[in-house]
Amino acid sequence: MKHKIYVVGLGPGEANMMTAQAAKVLEESDVIAGYQGYLKLLGDQFAEKELISTMMRQEVDRCRMAYEKAMEGKNVSLVCSGDAGIYGMASLMYELSPEYPDCELEIIPGITAASSGAALLGAPINHDFCVISLSDLLTPWEQIRRRLTAAVEGDFAIVLYNPASRKRPDYLKRACEILLEKAEPSRACGYVENIGREGTKTEVCSLIELREKPVNMFTTVFIGNSQSVILNGKLVTKRGYRI
Amino acid sequence: MKHKIYVVGLGPGEANMMTAQAAKVLEESDVIAGYQGYLKLLGDQFAEKELISTMMRQEVDRCRMAYEKAMEGKNVSLVCSGDAGIYGMASLMYELSPEYPDCELEIIPGITAASSGAALLGAPINHDFCVISLSDLLTPWEQIRRRLTAAVEGDFAIVLYNPASRKRPDYLKRACEILLEKAEPSRACGYVENIGREGTKTEVCSLIELREKPVNMFTTVFIGNSQSVILNGKLVTKRGYRI
Repeated sequence: MKHKIYVVGLGPGEANMMTAQAAKVLEESDVIAGYQGYLKLLGDQFAEKELISTMMRQEVDRCRMAYEKAMEGKNVSLVCSGDAGIYGMASLMYELSPEYPDCELEIIPGITAASSGAALLGAPINHDFCVISLSDLLTPWEQIRRRLTAAVEGDFAIVLYNPASRKRPDYLKRACEILLEKAEPSRACGYVENIGREGTKTEVCSLIELREKPVNMFTTVFIGNSQSVILNGKLVTKRGYRI
Repeated sequence: MKHKIYVVGLGPGEANMMTAQAAKVLEESDVIAGYQGYLKLLGDQFAEKELISTMMRQEVDRCRMAYEKAMEGKNVSLVCSGDAGIYGMASLMYELSPEYPDCELEIIPGITAASSGAALLGAPINHDFCVISLSDLLTPWEQIRRRLTAAVEGDFAIVLYNPASRKRPDYLKRACEILLEKAEPSRACGYVENIGREGTKTEVCSLIELREKPVNMFTTVFIGNSQSVILNGKLVTKRGYRI
């Protein structure tokens, strides 16, 4: 029988936004592996488990540690914030899988920030949408630019992950400038900070206002499509029902 | 105090793929409103609740019924499959909200088919992606065509919702032909039927093969980006880590 490893999406942070399936898998694990910040999200509930973590940017090491623990016969869960398969560790685990033929992966999905952020802002992605990360650590900026342009040309609602970091303070501004080449300055937008964690904050604004907003790595940004509206402070992208 | 209405995403179907937050809200509701098919997904667990439903395509009536029940002082949850804010009822409820100023909405997110289907297929949307519905009930086909073209020009991974129905048996084929104008025939793809329900089935294939596949309204389709691969039967879109 193969050693099974669960790659688990924790959702935005609060324990009650995890699925029952994810909670059960963690409960049954001997080892929980993940980025330190995410293990903290779990709180004291799993204090008796063997917790193994690495720092940010040591993702390959973290995945290998999960495989090694599974090879020792332990039940292992590798945790990710949000969804394990959306900017999470699922793909890297599959890429490494040929080196560990005795292991088998199961991906346990979680609520990604596009969903949890949208719920707080109103209904910004209630029609066709794109999700784009502004982080150029692993993706050339020219590719990100190309995707921003395509997204606005297709009139998608857009969700931006990783809109800024300390080393990239102006990336949201750069993205807004690319979008403003094709979209009207009044385009309805919004953003959410610290979804499912302390200090949750939402704000709606126009695209031209969004360009000047201070955001950080805990912000998720939403840009409406050309038909989106701000309605009583909520960002709403209609599906087209006649009311 | 305003009457609160919860618009709740149930996830793909199995109760254990709902969040704890969604389960709690339903438990505390007097009335659960929704499309008949979704109320069935809930099973017997909520048999003592007042269940109100309408048929498919009576979405506006269903939303108004939820508001009316809330105005009577009942705790109301309006349920949607997947995520309430992704092709769900969240936007329509906000559009109707000016008519019911004494009511207040809270959106409870759920696992959408992009996440749950991806988890079964491998890691197909582990980088930037688009979600497009092929249903032209509320969206002109020309708009759908424009979005498909933009998605492939931006080299996004793509998730297709509603790829076919009895009245639209050939829509996936039409979509694949649009994508094949820009994407290579060997592009890695896959699809999932009946996610989180009986008869779950996954398959991976090339884009040219996908064009001929029989799909239905319970199928979710995934088209990789130009770098996606099929690895041991799993569809994987890499993030770009060096391993």
